[in-house]
Amino acid sequence: MKLLAWTLMLTSIAFAQKPLTIASQGSFFIGGETKALPAAGGRGGFGAGDITINQMYVQFQIPVNGDRHVPVVMVHGCCLSSKTWETTPDNRMGWSEYFVRKDRPVYLADQSSRARSGFDPSTLNAVKAGTIPPSQLPNVLVASHQTAWTVFRFGPKYGEAFPDGQFPIQAVDELYKQMIPDLNSTLPNPNPTLKNMAALAVKLKGAVLMGHSESGFFPEQAALIDPSNIKGLISIEMGCPDLKPEEIAIIAKIPTMVMFGDHLNDVQGGPANWGSSLDSCNKFVQKVKDKGGDAEMMYLPKMGIKGNSHMLMQDRNSDQLADLILNWIDGHVEKKKAR
Amino acid sequence: MKLLAWTLMLTSIAFAQKPLTIASQGSFFIGGETKALPAAGGRGGFGAGDITINQMYVQFQIPVNGDRHVPVVMVHGCCLSSKTWETTPDNRMGWSEYFVRKDRPVYLADQSSRARSGFDPSTLNAVKAGTIPPSQLPNVLVASHQTAWTVFRFGPKYGEAFPDGQFPIQAVDELYKQMIPDLNSTLPNPNPTLKNMAALAVKLKGAVLMGHSESGFFPEQAALIDPSNIKGLISIEMGCPDLKPEEIAIIAKIPTMVMFGDHLNDVQGGPANWGSSLDSCNKFVQKVKDKGGDAEMMYLPKMGIKGNSHMLMQDRNSDQLADLILNWIDGHVEKKKAR
Repeated sequence: MKLLAWTLMLTSIAFAQKPLTIASQGSFFIGGETKALPAAGGRGGFGAGDITINQMYVQFQIPVNGDRHVPVVMVHGCCLSSKTWETTPDNRMGWSEYFVRKDRPVYLADQSSRARSGFDPSTLNAVKAGTIPPSQLPNVLVASHQTAWTVFRFGPKYGEAFPDGQFPIQAVDELYKQMIPDLNSTLPNPNPTLKNMAALAVKLKGAVLMGHSESGFFPEQAALIDPSNIKGLISIEMGCPDLKPEEIAIIAKIPTMVMFGDHLNDVQGGPANWGSSLDSCNKFVQKVKDKGGDAEMMYLPKMGIKGNSHMLMQDRNSDQLADLILNWIDGHVEKKKAR
Repeated sequence: MKLLAWTLMLTSIAFAQKPLTIASQGSFFIGGETKALPAAGGRGGFGAGDITINQMYVQFQIPVNGDRHVPVVMVHGCCLSSKTWETTPDNRMGWSEYFVRKDRPVYLADQSSRARSGFDPSTLNAVKAGTIPPSQLPNVLVASHQTAWTVFRFGPKYGEAFPDGQFPIQAVDELYKQMIPDLNSTLPNPNPTLKNMAALAVKLKGAVLMGHSESGFFPEQAALIDPSNIKGLISIEMGCPDLKPEEIAIIAKIPTMVMFGDHLNDVQGGPANWGSSLDSCNKFVQKVKDKGGDAEMMYLPKMGIKGNSHMLMQDRNSDQLADLILNWIDGHVEKKKAR
C-alpha cells in the first residue's frame, strides 16, 4: 500500500515536470464600451476625455491537441482574480495548467471591473472633485483574512483549521495575497461580465463556462443572455436563484454540473451560509432535471470526498477534483467514454 | 528584394506557429504586508479585519532551454498592466512570448496596487464611511483615449497618425482596453514595487530588470535598494532623475541600457515632454559611462529605426526591437558573442 502511494506520488511529480507544449497562447479583451468623462473631476484633474469600460481581459493557452476538446472558460470569485486557477498557495499546479496538460484549451477571464480588466473610476474622481457626495462612492468589497478563513471554510473559526481540511493551510498567507478589492458595485446592471462570457463562447465557437462563488451562477446567467455557443455549465459553490420555468427551459438544453465541498454547516457565524446555498442549488438541479435537462450535483462529501474548502481548486486534492470535472466534460459535453 | 521580404515574412509566420515548449510556468507573489483595518469604514461595513497590501503578482514562463539564460523581468507603465507585453493590439506575439521563444525565462509583474496585485482600498472605504474627508481620496490616474494618442505618440494630435508611425493604429481600440486606473498614489513612499523588484531578482538568483514609462527607471531604483542580484537594467522611455555620485557608482556596476522611440518632439501639447526625457537620460547614461560603467543609449531614430511610438513593444517592428534587446543582453549581461 505504501509502495503504491509512493509510485503514485512519483508519477504525479514526473507529470508535473514534463515539459508542456503549447500550440498557441496570448490574451485579448471581450466587450468594452466608450464612456465620455467630463472635464470637472472626470479624470483626476486631467480634463475631459473618453475611456473604455466594462471590457473583460482573457488570457489563454491552447495545447497541441487542443482541437480535440471543447475550450474551458474559468471565471474567479469575489475579491479574487484569475490567479485563483494558477499555481496554488502551496506551489502546486493549478487547474488552468492541469486542464491544458489534459489537452483542453483554457481561457482565464478577469471579471469586468477586476484586475487586468480595469474598472470605471469616474465616481471616485467625481467625489474627490466634490461634484458628487461621498455616499455615492462604490461599496468596495474587501475580504479580510478573518473573513476568508470562515467564508472559505478553512476551519470552524479564525485561526483554527478543520483536522480533515483539504486546504493547504500552512500556505494561507499566499492566498491572502490573492485577495484584492472587488469593485463589482461600479458595474451597470446586468453585470457586463455575463454578456462578455456569452460573447466569449461565441468567439470560441463553443465553450464550457465555469464559475466559482460570486461568479458561480455566471455561466447560467450568461446562457440566459445567449446560449448559442455554450456547450456546458460548471458552477462551483454559490447560491442558486429561483429561475422562472422559461429560464429553466433554456438551461435544460445545456449539460450542467454543480460542485460543493465539505463542512458547509461547520463554521461559526460569518456572512456566508453554505448549507442553504447547497439547498438552493439542489432545487435548481432538480428543476433542470424535471425539465428533461442533464444536470448533476457533485456534493463531494456524499461522493466520499471529505474536507474540501470553498477554494477547492486550491485544495490538496485539486487534481482529483479536476479529474472529476474533466470526466464530466468528456461524458456529458463531449459524449465520449469516460477516461 | 520583394522575394526576400516574402521569405522573411513566411519565416516569421512559421516561427510564430511553431509549438512552444515550456519547462515550467505559473505565478506567485513577492512582498506584501499585513494591515489591520478598523471596524468603522475599514471594509465597507464588514467590520474590522486584516488585509494584505503592497504585494506584487508575478506570472512566469521558463522555456526548456531557459537555464542557459538570465531571467528577464518585465514591468509595465502607467495605467497599464502586464498585458503590455502579451499579444499586441493587432494580434501579433508580444515580447513576453517572443523572449520565451528565444530561450529566456520571462517574469511579468503587475505593479503593486495594479491589476492582479490588488490595492489598498482603506482610504476609499473610510471616505465612504465619513471618517475622513473626500479630499483624502487617492488621485486615480486615468489615461483617456485622447491622452494615450498624444502621450504615446501615435500622431501629432488626437485622431491624426504619423505617416511613418509604427504603432498598429488600426487596432488602437484594443490598446484602449488595456488602459486601467492607476492607483500608485495609494502606495507608501518608497513605492513597494521597487523593493519587490529587487527581492524578485534575489529570489531568481539573478535577473535583468526591464521597466517602461512610469516604471522605466524602476530597475535603477530597485538596484539602489539592493543591487546584489540585478544583472542588467533595461529602461524604456522615461525621465531620468539626477542621481548622486554614490548612486551612479552603484548603477555603474550593472550593465545598463536605455531605449527611446521616434517623434519625441512632434506632438502638439499634452502632459509629456519626451524630448526633455531623452535629454535627461542621455545625461544619466553619460554619467554612468564617466564612472566606468557599461551604459548604452539606444535612441532608435539615430540607429536608423524610424517611427516608433511610446508603446514600442507593441509597434509593428516589435520583434526587431526585441532582437536589439536580446542581443544587448547576450553581449553585455551574458558576455556572449552577438547572435
